[in-house]
Amino acid sequence: MSQLKNDRYIRACLRQENDRTPIWMMRQAGRYLPEYRQLRAEAGSFMDLCTNPELACEVTLQPLRRFPLDAAILFSDILTIPDAMGLGLYFTPGEGPAFKRPVRTMAAVNALPIPDPNQELKYVTDAVATIRRELKGEVPLIGFSGSPWTLATYMVEGASTKNFSLVKGMMYQEPITMHALLDKLADSIIAYLNAQVAAGAQALMIFDTWGGVLTPSDYQEFSLRHMQKIVDGLKREHQGQKIPVTLFTKGAGAWLDIMAETGCDCLGVDWSTNLADARVRVADKVALQGNMDPSILYGSEQRIREEVSKILASYGQGHGHVFNLGHGIHQTVAPEHAAAFIKAVHELSPQYHQ
Amino acid sequence: MSQLKNDRYIRACLRQENDRTPIWMMRQAGRYLPEYRQLRAEAGSFMDLCTNPELACEVTLQPLRRFPLDAAILFSDILTIPDAMGLGLYFTPGEGPAFKRPVRTMAAVNALPIPDPNQELKYVTDAVATIRRELKGEVPLIGFSGSPWTLATYMVEGASTKNFSLVKGMMYQEPITMHALLDKLADSIIAYLNAQVAAGAQALMIFDTWGGVLTPSDYQEFSLRHMQKIVDGLKREHQGQKIPVTLFTKGAGAWLDIMAETGCDCLGVDWSTNLADARVRVADKVALQGNMDPSILYGSEQRIREEVSKILASYGQGHGHVFNLGHGIHQTVAPEHAAAFIKAVHELSPQYHQ
Repeated sequence: MSQLKNDRYIRACLRQENDRTPIWMMRQAGRYLPEYRQLRAEAGSFMDLCTNPELACEVTLQPLRRFPLDAAILFSDILTIPDAMGLGLYFTPGEGPAFKRPVRTMAAVNALPIPDPNQELKYVTDAVATIRRELKGEVPLIGFSGSPWTLATYMVEGASTKNFSLVKGMMYQEPITMHALLDKLADSIIAYLNAQVAAGAQALMIFDTWGGVLTPSDYQEFSLRHMQKIVDGLKREHQGQKIPVTLFTKGAGAWLDIMAETGCDCLGVDWSTNLADARVRVADKVALQGNMDPSILYGSEQRIREEVSKILASYGQGHGHVFNLGHGIHQTVAPEHAAAFIKAVHELSPQYHQ
Repeated sequence: MSQLKNDRYIRACLRQENDRTPIWMMRQAGRYLPEYRQLRAEAGSFMDLCTNPELACEVTLQPLRRFPLDAAILFSDILTIPDAMGLGLYFTPGEGPAFKRPVRTMAAVNALPIPDPNQELKYVTDAVATIRRELKGEVPLIGFSGSPWTLATYMVEGASTKNFSLVKGMMYQEPITMHALLDKLADSIIAYLNAQVAAGAQALMIFDTWGGVLTPSDYQEFSLRHMQKIVDGLKREHQGQKIPVTLFTKGAGAWLDIMAETGCDCLGVDWSTNLADARVRVADKVALQGNMDPSILYGSEQRIREEVSKILASYGQGHGHVFNLGHGIHQTVAPEHAAAFIKAVHELSPQYHQ
């Protein structure tokens, strides 16, 4: 079905027959790799890497040179869209991302442009095209974006937050303003992700990092509803190939059933939910991605292998499982432990594909 | 059954008949109250208030003078035990609590003393006795502690953490050391809480703030198992009165059924779980406390009232509901909104007790 030499990841997302469970790792390109740290030291800031297509390509490929992973993911940040809207993204060491000009009123929402992915975000589509070319069809390239709600949390708060007081304050005091912001973000994300597909992305993922801080009904109204709009607006086929879409809301174990109704292909699952329970909840309507606690990579190779075995067994027989961590790999993990993790998935998963 | 003028909170924990749903608020004594901020400015640090029984009593009573709450809760910190073990608790503004001497080896665990609640923690039992006297039987006084796992996260990390890398690293690399630490903490907490009861606490609550960052099986092994030991070790009756025990693990919506098997009386529920679902899960074996998102207090009085109505309806008919927030009240909430919240519970809940 595809020109890919290894299409296991695509096949798993679409729940098609496979010889083993594919694996990739969230944040597989990053600070736990010495070659990344070296390039970063030479190149400057994190955003200097993201905005230079050649460097973004190099960083994207680094983990694939080390490990037999089944997918590459664009090296970028979830906050590129608000940055392109003019909010002034910056990073303070140890504090996470922040914006110089947060958005807190209807006037500010109305003034936000919808970024043109081929202008303000051309560095991203250029990176996608470069990576796709350099991958030479080895494995698929995943493009991504943050979810509207998750982008809105950063845009309203202006910086990292524990309580989400400002963004929830807006949600409860001015729901119309909040929906206007989320709607504009959904439109921007649709254009952005479709441009990534046009440039060569072969699968898409939407990261809803902060949907789990909402009540069940607020999650449906303020996060899922706008992700639904995106799923409906994405090109799901390109040059004869299906483009699988994965939604990942951290902390959404209880809501997987309604997420599965959006028409996406795959759901990310964090480690607080057992995959056997998750599979029952989604009634095999979608594939599942996950869900090892990244901290298990601090354990011994034996401990890592045991956990891989447990997670494979919890999903059980079938082709709709993409192995991954339940969150990004931690920067202090030894690359050798990541190698042991990937090896365990390669060795232990074929028995579930008979 | 009790000398209390208002025993609605105790009755709800024990699922006994009531005329309306009782309400208190986590962190009801605190920075959102101007009278607290004034006292704090005069008295010095947060720990200066905790360690002075007269001041701790004054702060505990402040919200009860303003609002018709159904319970008082000891003004203290969850980290008093590790501080009494000699770890050197301190607070940096905006950063949360930290310890000068974190615990990261078996030798360090072995060297930890089990604090004597009537020596190193006498300031707590003195505060309990003072508050109990000053409450004059109006409402019950709740004593509390952090859970072993939650205390261990702070003791191993030494400061606030996003990824729990160090404590999970110890858990996966040295589970025996971790259990030795948790076991010692459980013993310390049993002694501490029983001393609070002896001094006058009429109910107990265990805050497991960080149990929700674990996988389902690790939660059972590293958090719940040690809370079970505590539940088994607590004096559940004092001077002829039952002492209800509440367990609260934030993010444990999926695990409420196994928590209900511990023999506790009540489970705290955060806002990510619907109370109707929670009630089905626990099969009415325990009472439920919760579960309004504290951020709803940023909304209008009308919005707050709607949410109270929704939560009361989600619990439905019956006497086993203690109304509360799903987490502590935020410091930037207007006290008038807290008043509207409490008023709504008073006015809307009697229909569920017919």
